[in-house]
Amino acid sequence: MSQGTDDTITISLDAMGGDNAPLSEVAGAVETVRDTKGINVTLTGISEKIEKELKKYSFDSSRIKVHHASEVIEMHESPAEAIRKKPDSSIISGLKLQKTGEAQAFISAGNTGAVMAASLFTLGRIANVSRPTIGSRFPTERGITIVFDVGANVDCKPVNLLEFAVMGSVFAEHIYSIKNPTVGLLSVGEEKSKGDLLTTQAYELLEKSGLNFIGNVEGRDILNGSTHVIICDGFTGNIVLKFAEGVLGLLKTKFTDYANRGLISKLKVGMAYGTLKTIMKDFDYQEYGGVPLLGVNGVSIIGHGRSSPLAVKNMILRAEQMVRAKINETIASRIKDIKEFTA
Amino acid sequence: MSQGTDDTITISLDAMGGDNAPLSEVAGAVETVRDTKGINVTLTGISEKIEKELKKYSFDSSRIKVHHASEVIEMHESPAEAIRKKPDSSIISGLKLQKTGEAQAFISAGNTGAVMAASLFTLGRIANVSRPTIGSRFPTERGITIVFDVGANVDCKPVNLLEFAVMGSVFAEHIYSIKNPTVGLLSVGEEKSKGDLLTTQAYELLEKSGLNFIGNVEGRDILNGSTHVIICDGFTGNIVLKFAEGVLGLLKTKFTDYANRGLISKLKVGMAYGTLKTIMKDFDYQEYGGVPLLGVNGVSIIGHGRSSPLAVKNMILRAEQMVRAKINETIASRIKDIKEFTA
Repeated sequence: MSQGTDDTITISLDAMGGDNAPLSEVAGAVETVRDTKGINVTLTGISEKIEKELKKYSFDSSRIKVHHASEVIEMHESPAEAIRKKPDSSIISGLKLQKTGEAQAFISAGNTGAVMAASLFTLGRIANVSRPTIGSRFPTERGITIVFDVGANVDCKPVNLLEFAVMGSVFAEHIYSIKNPTVGLLSVGEEKSKGDLLTTQAYELLEKSGLNFIGNVEGRDILNGSTHVIICDGFTGNIVLKFAEGVLGLLKTKFTDYANRGLISKLKVGMAYGTLKTIMKDFDYQEYGGVPLLGVNGVSIIGHGRSSPLAVKNMILRAEQMVRAKINETIASRIKDIKEFTA
Repeated sequence: MSQGTDDTITISLDAMGGDNAPLSEVAGAVETVRDTKGINVTLTGISEKIEKELKKYSFDSSRIKVHHASEVIEMHESPAEAIRKKPDSSIISGLKLQKTGEAQAFISAGNTGAVMAASLFTLGRIANVSRPTIGSRFPTERGITIVFDVGANVDCKPVNLLEFAVMGSVFAEHIYSIKNPTVGLLSVGEEKSKGDLLTTQAYELLEKSGLNFIGNVEGRDILNGSTHVIICDGFTGNIVLKFAEGVLGLLKTKFTDYANRGLISKLKVGMAYGTLKTIMKDFDYQEYGGVPLLGVNGVSIIGHGRSSPLAVKNMILRAEQMVRAKINETIASRIKDIKEFTA
């Protein structure tokens, strides 16, 4: 390896994952090794297709490897079934490189459910974590807000929410350098008594957790930046996440409709749209580098199916950060402490 | 009464409800009687304050009455306690006018929880309805989408969701003249198997309901206008509703930040903001006339605390529509049919 130091880490990248695979994946890998030091990439998938794409670029060939996997899990396959039927898929094969020590992290823009299930199956869980979680960063008026869980766990128990809070705090601390991040519980009112059965019980646990718990927050607080980490069950979180995606579609349609009213409207929209686009950069998932699956015994990051080369590169950088920060070690020790008092 | 016909209806309006009460309420009532026929308004609350405000206007005094109620339930009082401690509040007193036949509908921009609880307590439920529901219309790319429940019921059983679907369908049919409205179940994936325990069980009921059920819809579908009625538990619905409110705040902040970058940015934002404002009119709750509480044995509409005179007027018109369309009669007969097959 050209970096040659002990410090170099290897990221296993599912080259068959996204809607533009392997184009975005290969381009993202090449850009990363060009622009950074200390990161090697192993592209996992059908080697013929990957090699063909790689030929378009010149790069330090010691830093990008191809790891052949003969099967591909498609976007709409049932996760459980796909994992069983396709043991040599790029997802499972790519994850296994963490078991053999050939890679320290895995990234995929493929079938989200399959990546979650395969990660859990291949990497296992961190001790004392009952359910891994995926979180998503939201754009806010000021600062950072990350919501956990956004879809890994639709039916939750109070203790799951407590664990999400611990993992989310560690993530905010290590990845965004926020000291003692604030944690809010997503509910329907600020008062402790407001909420459903799940949240009112989770409140009790969070209050005693030693986390920087600020109590209940409401839907509007996700976007005002008042809280670093917001906790909810994965059903609610997933619906909010997809609703937020829908907002951009709605704005686009409304602007187009308005532009079609006449020339002046068209000119105004032209002006407004450029401004809006600049402002909307904050909403761009490609900037954020995918959503991490926290709680598995390794590093696994899931990207949007439409991930561009930039998004892939940002996921690789995020994976590197997670490996170097050793966030799993901190999660393991904090979860252990929490378990002791909730036992 | 000047209208003098059998056809005139009387709306009982909580004059102490909103943040601008009684200003907005009185102005909205006066505007309504000026612009319409066949609607009288009874302003309920502290008569001295209401009379003082009414003196500012000239109007047909036979069409606006004042009904004195000595107590006011404040915005942040606990609903259950407030109702018990303040039996002569404008909310309870105003609702009671439907029991005596002095009014056919009630409207309040006051404490939402108190209005819901007092409505249920005073009016009772339509036969076979286990839980009344509140719905909210969302702006969409095309057409009408109304989401039920948005906060009346945080913990739901599958049969509650079925009832919301029936009531929501009747509302869309009678108020928005949509024939056989489509009904979607809010979930985390389109497939029948996707969802939490509640939604997967509710799916089974909805499938057999005889409603125009189109299956699961996702968060993004709330805004694309693909479904007339979307059903969810009140915890999820409330969080989505408040998140949507937060979107406007976020856009405003981002535009202001961008404007502060310099003169050109400021000019661009000036242009963009006007356009955005026009487009955003669709997001304006004041246009929609409040959210109806469906399933109570009467008409009760809850407005936003910040309701303007226009919002109050639109609530009055919505209440009139609900009374004239006799939507409770249709709900009663449809719910009865549904109960027979789910029994």
